[in-house]
This record gives sequence, C-alpha cells and structure tokens, in this order.
Amino acid sequence: MTAKTLGKIETKYFTFAQPSHEFKLESGRTFGPITVAYESYGQLNADKSNTILVMHAFSGNAHVAGPVSEEQDPPWWDFMVGPGKALDTEKYFVLCANVIGGCKGTTGPSSMNPKTGKPYALDFPLITIGDMVRVQKTLIDHLGIKKLHGVIGGSMGGMLALQWVALYPDAVECVIPIAATLKHSPQQIAFNEVGRQAIMADPAWNYGNYYGGALPEKGLAVARMVGHITYMSNDSMEKKFSRRLKDDHSGFKFSADFEVEGYLQHRGMSFVKRFDANSYLYITKAMDYFDLSDAKWIPPQGLPNVRFLVIAFKSDWLYPSVQSQEMVRQLKMRQIDATYCEIDASYGHDSFLIESESEKQSHLIKHFLAKRK
Amino acid sequence: MTAKTLGKIETKYFTFAQPSHEFKLESGRTFGPITVAYESYGQLNADKSNTILVMHAFSGNAHVAGPVSEEQDPPWWDFMVGPGKALDTEKYFVLCANVIGGCKGTTGPSSMNPKTGKPYALDFPLITIGDMVRVQKTLIDHLGIKKLHGVIGGSMGGMLALQWVALYPDAVECVIPIAATLKHSPQQIAFNEVGRQAIMADPAWNYGNYYGGALPEKGLAVARMVGHITYMSNDSMEKKFSRRLKDDHSGFKFSADFEVEGYLQHRGMSFVKRFDANSYLYITKAMDYFDLSDAKWIPPQGLPNVRFLVIAFKSDWLYPSVQSQEMVRQLKMRQIDATYCEIDASYGHDSFLIESESEKQSHLIKHFLAKRK
Repeated sequence: MTAKTLGKIETKYFTFAQPSHEFKLESGRTFGPITVAYESYGQLNADKSNTILVMHAFSGNAHVAGPVSEEQDPPWWDFMVGPGKALDTEKYFVLCANVIGGCKGTTGPSSMNPKTGKPYALDFPLITIGDMVRVQKTLIDHLGIKKLHGVIGGSMGGMLALQWVALYPDAVECVIPIAATLKHSPQQIAFNEVGRQAIMADPAWNYGNYYGGALPEKGLAVARMVGHITYMSNDSMEKKFSRRLKDDHSGFKFSADFEVEGYLQHRGMSFVKRFDANSYLYITKAMDYFDLSDAKWIPPQGLPNVRFLVIAFKSDWLYPSVQSQEMVRQLKMRQIDATYCEIDASYGHDSFLIESESEKQSHLIKHFLAKRK
Repeated sequence: MTAKTLGKIETKYFTFAQPSHEFKLESGRTFGPITVAYESYGQLNADKSNTILVMHAFSGNAHVAGPVSEEQDPPWWDFMVGPGKALDTEKYFVLCANVIGGCKGTTGPSSMNPKTGKPYALDFPLITIGDMVRVQKTLIDHLGIKKLHGVIGGSMGGMLALQWVALYPDAVECVIPIAATLKHSPQQIAFNEVGRQAIMADPAWNYGNYYGGALPEKGLAVARMVGHITYMSNDSMEKKFSRRLKDDHSGFKFSADFEVEGYLQHRGMSFVKRFDANSYLYITKAMDYFDLSDAKWIPPQGLPNVRFLVIAFKSDWLYPSVQSQEMVRQLKMRQIDATYCEIDASYGHDSFLIESESEKQSHLIKHFLAKRK
C-alpha cells in the first residue's frame, strides 16, 4: 500500500526557443525568449483528458501543493491538491504555472534580458491577463494536451480561468472562478494604485533599476500592508487581533502598539523577501486592465460544452459577491451551464486560501469536477 | 434688511499663559504653552446658553463656514452653518477650534518649541482624544461659557463629541456623533497604521525632523490616497469614475491610466500642501487609542439632561453603521435619550461632508437642536 501523499515535487521549466517561438503580446510587441516555471501533481492519463490547470493569485506561484524544499515558498493550496482531495491527484493531472511578469521562475521584469545581460526592469513589456493565459496555452500545447478537464483559480486566478475559456472555449470543460470578477471596479483599481504609488514613492525603486542594489523594501512593504487589509474581513481581524496591545512595545512613539499593527508590519516585511516590486507593478496593471464584462467573448452559439462553478465568499469585500453574481447573470443570459455558490466564510477575500474555511469549497469543487455531462 | 450670509470670519487665537496654565496631558506629562485657533459664527446670547461646539474630523480645521481668505482652506461645512441653516447662526453661537496636535493654528508638532526655538517634531508629546477635548474646554471656560447647547462632529469629530460628554456630562445638552464609533476596530487601526508606515517609509520624514527641509511628500500622499479610498464608497467611485481612462496618458508605463488613479494622485498631492505629516501620525494614534466602549464613562445615574442624536450612513464601510448602533444600544441600556438615524446616502464615510447628500442630515440636526425638553 502506498502512502497517500504527494511525492517529491520539482519545479520544471519550459523555454520557448528563439527565433521560431517569439511571442506576440496583446500590446502588439514581440517578446522572447520566455521561460515558464510549472509544477504537476498526479499522472496524465492515456488520452490526456484529465488535466486540471490551477491558476495562482496575484502573489502566488507554481508551487500549489506538496513538500517544501528550502528554496521554495510553502505550498499555497496544499489542502486542495493531493490524493483524495478536491483536486484528486489519483484522478487528475494537476498543473500550475507561474504567470509571465511574475518573479517565481517564469520570465518577468527581474529576469535577465539576453540582449543586455541585465535584468529587464522597466524594459519588460506591459503584459495582460490574456498574455498570461496564452503563455500557459503554449505550455499545454508543448505537453501535448488538447483539452483541459478544468481551469480553476481564486482572485486573479479566477480572472485567468475566465480568460482561458474566453480565448480557448473549445479547450476546456469546467471553469471554476473563485472570489473573482469580470473586471476591476474603480475601488479595486484604487487599492492597486495605492500599492503601486507606495512602491514608486520609495527612492530605492529608482524607476525600476534596483536589481543588485538596495531594494524598495519599505515601499513594497507598505503596498503589501494595504493589500493585506483588503484580503481580510473586519470580522476575521476582530477575531484574530481585536484591540489587543502587543507585549513588546519598543518605546518609540510610532512603533506598533496594537497586535494588528505588528502583524501587518510582519506581513509587509516578509513579503519583501519573496516578491519583486516590479512584478507587483506589472501584474496589478494587468489585473486593472482585465475586462470581460461586455460578454463579447462568449461565442454566438454559447458554450454548450463548458460548465461553470462560480464561488464567492460572503465576507469578501474586496471582490464582493455581487461581482460573481454579475458573472453568473451574464452566463445564464446566454444559456450557459453555471452554478453559483456564495460560501458563508468569515475570512474575507482570503477565504479560498484558508484551510479551516475550506470544507464547503472543497466539497463543491470535488463534486462539480466529478460530474460528467 | 441684512443679507442672510455670514459676515467676515476671522480665526482667533487663545494662548494659555505659562506657568499658571501649564496643561497636564492624559499621559501624565505637563505641556505648554498651548495656543488654540478657533472661529465663531453668530452671537453668544445674554445667558450664554446658545453655544454649539463643532468638532472637526481628522484633517479638518476651525474654518467650518464662511468666506475664504487667501491663506485659508475652503470651509468644510459651509452648508451646515449660517443663517437659517441647520446650525442656524441667527439662533446659535457656533464655535469650532482646531485640535491640539494639529497643524491649523493650534499647537502641534510643527509648532515652535519655545525652549529650543525649533519645531517640536517628535518631542511633541503623545496626545489623546481626551486631551483634545480638555484643551477645548479651557477655551470654553475662557469664553465664560458654562454649558454648551450642543456638541457635534463627524468621524473623529463624533469621537470628540462623545469624549466631551464623557468628561463633562453636566456641561452639554445635545450630543450629535455622526459616522463615528466608540472605538476603532482592528481594521480601522490597520488603515491608519498603513498611512503612518507610508509616511515613516519616506526618507524625507527623517524621524520627524523635516521642517525647513524637504517634506515627506510622497509618503504623506500615499497615506492620504489610502484614506481617500476608505472615505468613499464603491458606488460613489463607480458613479464618479467607473473605469474611464484619463485623456492625457503621459506614456510612462505606470502613470495614471484610469481617472480614479489620477484623482487619487491629485488628492494625495494637494493634501501634502495643506497638512503636516507629523500631525498625521499624532492624530491617527489618538484616534486608535480612543475607547469609550466599556460605558464606564456614563455616570451611575445616567445622563438625564443630555440627548443624543446618532447618525450613520448606509454606504459608510469605514465606520460602518453597526458601530453607531452599538453606541445607541449602550446609551439605551442606560435609559439615556438617544435617537438613531441611518441615512441612505451613497457617498460612504464622507457623506456627512457632501452638500448634495446633506438634506436629511441637516433636517435631522436642525429639529433635534430646536427641540426643548
């Protein structure tokens, strides 16, 4: 009897070779070479019909599940992927790739520009959610997979899942956008813009040219702190911190007095160690420009072979459930098979990442994927 | 017949002379001299019983209403104060003073320390909402006013109004906290902390010693941008900006593309011209430490001679109406005369400052103040 755990997981890399595979971005600019960092869990079946593509959120990476090596961040959806779990690796071949523009192995602004021998920095082209998906499609093609059983993701991952079916409606069966939206509201753009301004206000940012020198740590930490507030709910903050004071006041007037302040500072500073400030700028811009709200992406004949499971969380005020409801409304208007569930989780936007909140989400996803038309 | 407008308004100054009037702060530290900047509208009646004390919000000042001189910010509640308005200057003597710790004429961190001949900067003592009120009480005493007809304010101004009756329950008849709270939630603390971190991340802040040199403009602007998002509602942003793009892209990759970005940047940069970064730190800390939630401030016999009108706004997510409801619940539990109204205004927390949203608010306040026991 084999132990029901994921074995050793290794990040793999796929590079589109120049010049035959230079990539045309949505902006019109040609760009390459592009390396894609990805991981896979479980086995691809004989007819290559059991792939679930997981799309990560803004600051995520390809390491969805499995043991952690020293260089890696901890897996971000370990409770979801594995033998017997919702994305059951005994049934499915689960795949996740870091997005273009990121800083977790796939080509991004911190990658070496082969033409200059230096990191791209702001010479990196503007990228879109569509570009991210088309890069992943190149990987899927490379693996010889013609059709995905499912695309799934939370937050930006949900936007990527929607973009996937918008670009390749014949190449996917199940689409599961979680805590996502068809487009950012001005409030969502505004929060992203504050993060960008915080980074660019840091003199160490230096118009993106900080590689090899002092990093714009303070600016990036402030950006992450703003983000963290929006990922939590008022209630979850109340449960976690209330107004408790920290034990170790430093004595400086404006040091962290309340636990919530210490927590935010800690999250800000630890983020700096694992994320690139320029990737923050590029990826948030891509999210802000994403807009599938006009439904023109839905083919005239609808999507008779695609099913949607749309999940929202009641306490999510950053991607409020009305945005998921609007998504479902548009799908239903076009007679598309769409199931909607608003989960009564208290953790805010981050609920999809929280194991203690995961039971309903896992149950829904497991059964939705297993159902055959 | 006189024109029904406010005449020329002048900011007045009252200084507690040393050494007889040194002021003991809540922290235990003695501090002085203190100058208070204040304005008044209308006439004090013969028995000095018609005073309404208006308390300003976080970044407000004493200039509530009336014509603007070149040096002054525009009045922040002009639609509320004047002949025939809710705070009717033909009936009431309306008074407003800038808070201690501020930067609008009352002593704060940017004021000259007479002992050193330089601005206090971080040598300025930590202050509390209680200190702000006790300084204003000194002004009221100086004017020979024994009892206020009303104390009123929105946001921090509402916290000050509550603190007023907590400290001086026999010196006030009507208390009107608007869009306020008995204490900051961890989320409210978190938003303030991000603002403070943004300021302190700016190297120009220099541990508070920036007077006479480069100001921490970028940090303060980011702080204000975060604040602005929280003052508006998702709906009001949608109405005002939706996802419209700016006409004048600068061409730089991470310049403001969306109108909402341009607006936030503009608000951030204009705030820098009118507000002191150290005052931002001191006043937000005072708000975070404010806590009247245990009701111990209510005398055992209740407050038989005080009436409360508590106003909240449906779209206010920063100071959500549940906080006002909790306030009313505590008052009602102690048989205190409290009226609650949740106004269906769309502008979020800032609704109390928006003239187009003001009709219901003005109506409620006018009639509440006019009613005699």
